Amino acid sequence: MKYKIILMVTALLLLCSGMLFADELADTVTVHQDALDMIWLILAAALVFFMQAGFAMVEMGLTRAKNAGNIIMKNLMDFSAGAVIYWAIGWALMYGSDVGGLFGFSQFFIKGADYILFRDWMFQVVFAATAATIVSGAMAERTKFSAYLIYSVFISGLIYPISGHWIWGGGWLAELGFHDFAGSTVVHSVGGWAALAGALFLGPRIGKFVKVNGKTTSKAILGHNLPIASLGVFILWFGWYGFNAGSTLSGTDMSIATVAVTTTLAAAMGSIAAMVISWIHFGKPDVSMSLNGALAGLVGITAPTAVVTPFGAVIIGLIAGILVVYSVEFFDKVLHIDDPVGAISVHGVCGLWGTLAVGLFANTEDIKGLFYGGGFGQLGVQALGAAAVFAWVFFTASLLFFIIKKTNGLRVTETEELVGLDLSEHGTESYSGFQIFTNM
Amino acid sequence: MKYKIILMVTALLLLCSGMLFADELADTVTVHQDALDMIWLILAAALVFFMQAGFAMVEMGLTRAKNAGNIIMKNLMDFSAGAVIYWAIGWALMYGSDVGGLFGFSQFFIKGADYILFRDWMFQVVFAATAATIVSGAMAERTKFSAYLIYSVFISGLIYPISGHWIWGGGWLAELGFHDFAGSTVVHSVGGWAALAGALFLGPRIGKFVKVNGKTTSKAILGHNLPIASLGVFILWFGWYGFNAGSTLSGTDMSIATVAVTTTLAAAMGSIAAMVISWIHFGKPDVSMSLNGALAGLVGITAPTAVVTPFGAVIIGLIAGILVVYSVEFFDKVLHIDDPVGAISVHGVCGLWGTLAVGLFANTEDIKGLFYGGGFGQLGVQALGAAAVFAWVFFTASLLFFIIKKTNGLRVTETEELVGLDLSEHGTESYSGFQIFTNM
Amino acid sequence: MKYKIILMVTALLLLCSGMLFADELADTVTVHQDALDMIWLILAAALVFFMQAGFAMVEMGLTRAKNAGNIIMKNLMDFSAGAVIYWAIGWALMYGSDVGGLFGFSQFFIKGADYILFRDWMFQVVFAATAATIVSGAMAERTKFSAYLIYSVFISGLIYPISGHWIWGGGWLAELGFHDFAGSTVVHSVGGWAALAGALFLGPRIGKFVKVNGKTTSKAILGHNLPIASLGVFILWFGWYGFNAGSTLSGTDMSIATVAVTTTLAAAMGSIAAMVISWIHFGKPDVSMSLNGALAGLVGITAPTAVVTPFGAVIIGLIAGILVVYSVEFFDKVLHIDDPVGAISVHGVCGLWGTLAVGLFANTEDIKGLFYGGGFGQLGVQALGAAAVFAWVFFTASLLFFIIKKTNGLRVTETEELVGLDLSEHGTESYSGFQIFTNM
Repeated sequence: MKYKIILMVTALLLLCSGMLFADELADTVTVHQDALDMIWLILAAALVFFMQAGFAMVEMGLTRAKNAGNIIMKNLMDFSAGAVIYWAIGWALMYGSDVGGLFGFSQFFIKGADYILFRDWMFQVVFAATAATIVSGAMAERTKFSAYLIYSVFISGLIYPISGHWIWGGGWLAELGFHDFAGSTVVHSVGGWAALAGALFLGPRIGKFVKVNGKTTSKAILGHNLPIASLGVFILWFGWYGFNAGSTLSGTDMSIATVAVTTTLAAAMGSIAAMVISWIHFGKPDVSMSLNGALAGLVGITAPTAVVTPFGAVIIGLIAGILVVYSVEFFDKVLHIDDPVGAISVHGVCGLWGTLAVGLFANTEDIKGLFYGGGFGQLGVQALGAAAVFAWVFFTASLLFFIIKKTNGLRVTETEELVGLDLSEHGTESYSGFQIFTNM
Repeated sequence: MKYKIILMVTALLLLCSGMLFADELADTVTVHQDALDMIWLILAAALVFFMQAGFAMVEMGLTRAKNAGNIIMKNLMDFSAGAVIYWAIGWALMYGSDVGGLFGFSQFFIKGADYILFRDWMFQVVFAATAATIVSGAMAERTKFSAYLIYSVFISGLIYPISGHWIWGGGWLAELGFHDFAGSTVVHSVGGWAALAGALFLGPRIGKFVKVNGKTTSKAILGHNLPIASLGVFILWFGWYGFNAGSTLSGTDMSIATVAVTTTLAAAMGSIAAMVISWIHFGKPDVSMSLNGALAGLVGITAPTAVVTPFGAVIIGLIAGILVVYSVEFFDKVLHIDDPVGAISVHGVCGLWGTLAVGLFANTEDIKGLFYGGGFGQLGVQALGAAAVFAWVFFTASLLFFIIKKTNGLRVTETEELVGLDLSEHGTESYSGFQIFTNM
Repeated sequence: MKYKIILMVTALLLLCSGMLFADELADTVTVHQDALDMIWLILAAALVFFMQAGFAMVEMGLTRAKNAGNIIMKNLMDFSAGAVIYWAIGWALMYGSDVGGLFGFSQFFIKGADYILFRDWMFQVVFAATAATIVSGAMAERTKFSAYLIYSVFISGLIYPISGHWIWGGGWLAELGFHDFAGSTVVHSVGGWAALAGALFLGPRIGKFVKVNGKTTSKAILGHNLPIASLGVFILWFGWYGFNAGSTLSGTDMSIATVAVTTTLAAAMGSIAAMVISWIHFGKPDVSMSLNGALAGLVGITAPTAVVTPFGAVIIGLIAGILVVYSVEFFDKVLHIDDPVGAISVHGVCGLWGTLAVGLFANTEDIKGLFYGGGFGQLGVQALGAAAVFAWVFFTASLLFFIIKKTNGLRVTETEELVGLDLSEHGTESYSGFQIFTNM
């Protein structure tokens, strides 16, 4: 019997050593899971950060040379001020412990953060800064720099985080099943509707709308640097792979691939559609419209990117590209709202479109849109969420701009505007040595 | 005996639970393998996408200000149209089920794709777009925009995928052992030879070649923005780490490191060599030649990057940098073919060089080049493949440009060319407000 | 008894198969560890490579149009020449077998490298190139191109690797416990102090300092392209996520997240602080100071990034942003040293600040700074290291520039400088067709 006992004891020892070994292995595998999420989210965050450069270049390129330096300052500062305030307050209001589904309230200054919280904050701060910087374009060439600074702090610290909480922070819209994968509403529409409020409170640039025989006509004010605007669009598209695909929030979520594909196809169709429509309407394929078409497709696919098919993405991008041309024309020619870069149309209107598109084109087990047999349920929730966020942002941003206007002042003087904000606000010129005609 | 039975049953239960645990662990490890490939390929694809910006900036910078907006449109649209057609048809012809080693034929519209196929399509579509966009540079400043759109669809949907199938899709050249790791031939030479056909069918820009006393002399037409051209080269070099290293197609393939090192050294030597040669020939170190030298080194190392030593990479880059200077001079001064950015030399000639370099410098267990005792075998296959792809691309691209010329028209009118394509084709100017002399 | 034996044998077989399986699993997990490190370091290296574009754009944007092409050449060549020399010699002196704590001496031409060494070289070569390129800015607009080439080879091949060995290669400062996580001293101060030597040996640009009534006054020479300078800063900031977070040297080190967060906050505070100080001092928020403020914050956080809290990062960035404004003014107005882009202040002074900040703000188990109860110990080591590196770099760089001056010549002629280096050194112009006033 002895040999049997020896055999059994050996077996047990082997077994134990094997299990210890497996335990260690399991620990390593857990570290790898963390590492995959970490690498994915930090690199995606870096890509989204780089979109700041894209926004700056697009805004600069589509406006006049005399204001380029001011645009640099606005874009640099909305990120910088935004990051600090989102560290102090923004994160806490967006992702802190839920208070009645309306806002978060804990983790101010991301106190006591472990690496998970650090990682998540890093990924979120670049989204907050994106929402902030969108507004800059609609308010270009006439806003007081100090006013812009004040606005920046409030949108990143208060307006964005609260509606963000509703959707991404576990608030009331999340409870209702509202789906916004990477932020057509959370980020882009928030930026777009705040931009609308800003443009309304500022009024148009001098010379933008001219009254001829009692009829107001819109005058085109050409951008001074299309090459750099196009670079901006390429940078944004590049960064969007971090923006959308990073929004899986995990490096082991295989929908990363679906997101990359639908994002690519929607952007491509957006620019094709905008080009074709501009060709039909203006007789020639328009450069800045085509560039905006790509952005429109990107904004449009941002909410539904993970739940639609490639074919769905093509249709969503197509409609976004058409929509952006008509929307830009509508705000300019009909409503006479001066939005120098088309930010309201690209981010507000196409953000709305993307949000609704979830309710139309979604085709997963969890979410089914109208066109895939899901009925009107999801579409209704999407519409409700979009409306609620519009109301929140438009109201608070209007209040903010109203208060700034009454206290600090929102707009530079007529002379400062004519001279250009580079000289009047920053005492510099952006293209020293070049012969430039400060065209109206 | 009872305690023995208890012992044994315990051991078995432990064993089973351990194995279940190990099974679960194994599943997680499999997910990690997928995640590593996913993260690697999607980020690499994003980097390769960003090369579109690089190509656009290089082409813009090396041509005249009056055509910059047109170049934006061409580069935006060859990606956009290319992505949509590569989704519909291109992928199917390149990677669908093989038909006689000549082309693929299945998975149109990547129907029924799982995450693996989505991921692979994403990585491949950016390569297709690279081949397409190369041609743009050689055809700059005189091509009808509509003609360029038609061309775009055909190269990304038909010409590129078919020769691509021969090499990367398991076609006849793959069967012969042709080695092109990241596309010196598959991507760059395809672009370069189509560019050659395009430049031939278009003819030179007005004023490029002047007849003086019966002798044709080439006139330099300076680029309008070297800073932005240099930015383009830096972006391309940056994106090339995705292009070459991503071509391991797996995140766990450790040759990623070799590829990164050989790519870096070849690019560095390419720019040094081109600088030195230009210094010797023109008396001064030339800026655009040095920039093209870096690209030449990158194109040259693209095929052999994974199978050569750092020393091999240095020699390959050195020769590419020398080659590009003489090739640009040869096409310009001897053949009088007008290639505004040197695309034929950089991508066609250096792509050919890189393809042959595999047969000379390869030094792995599987592939040995001539200089490492491998004899002429591999070199012969490389030459055959390069010749076959040249024949295919030059013939089909010529046919395509011939048909476009006879139907839609390939070239703008003389007046449109003199005015500039921004105004004539797109009704805009790219640098509004700047004093610009529309130099010949 | 038979059934018991069968049972036991079964158990043992199961056990063995289980262990074989676990062995295989363990191998795969080891591959994954390698892959995580590989993906992380190669992508981080690519990001750091891209910083070359950032440096080029910043330097170009902040200087005059007539020298832009020369700046392209310097930046392209310091990377290219630097990469080749760092392959041949640099790595060996920095990371080869230690000789007396002073330098390394083995692995020339990274001979016999496996994938680990390839990977590590790739990550290190981009750091070497960063140190080299910093100097370019301080020597802009007046340095002979050939002199710059010679300098490039020596800093990347000799000066940088040796002090680098002291700290990162296991040399004497590493032994003393000097902490420089990502290179405030190793990279930035080395660049900054070499820049100081260069600027001293060159002397100021013509017209920079004017004697009026026996008193020397400094004249501002405006940069010609702020948009492209701002793009450069955004690119640098973007690349810094690779620079700092990549310096974990491992993809499974969870301090990646801490590093990303502290880097973001310090950069943000740096730009805010520089803006505010410039506003107070000059009456308006200055664009190029604010841009330099962001870089100052980034340089400052580079050493302490992994060992400080977000709050520490905010303070470090704040002080860096203040410091850079006063330092630029001090070098310009008091010392009359002409540093066109502020490289000495940004990289030298703020690199010093970041190095000392470790001794003040560190708060980990291993390293405690003065403010966290660690006493003066760490601070003393940091000061000693910073002083030693200053001495080494300033002495050797001075010697190098002295020898270049006496042999090849360091500076272009007065006429060449007035005409601009693009024309005189490279026979080209960077903005052909634009009306440019060669101011000064």
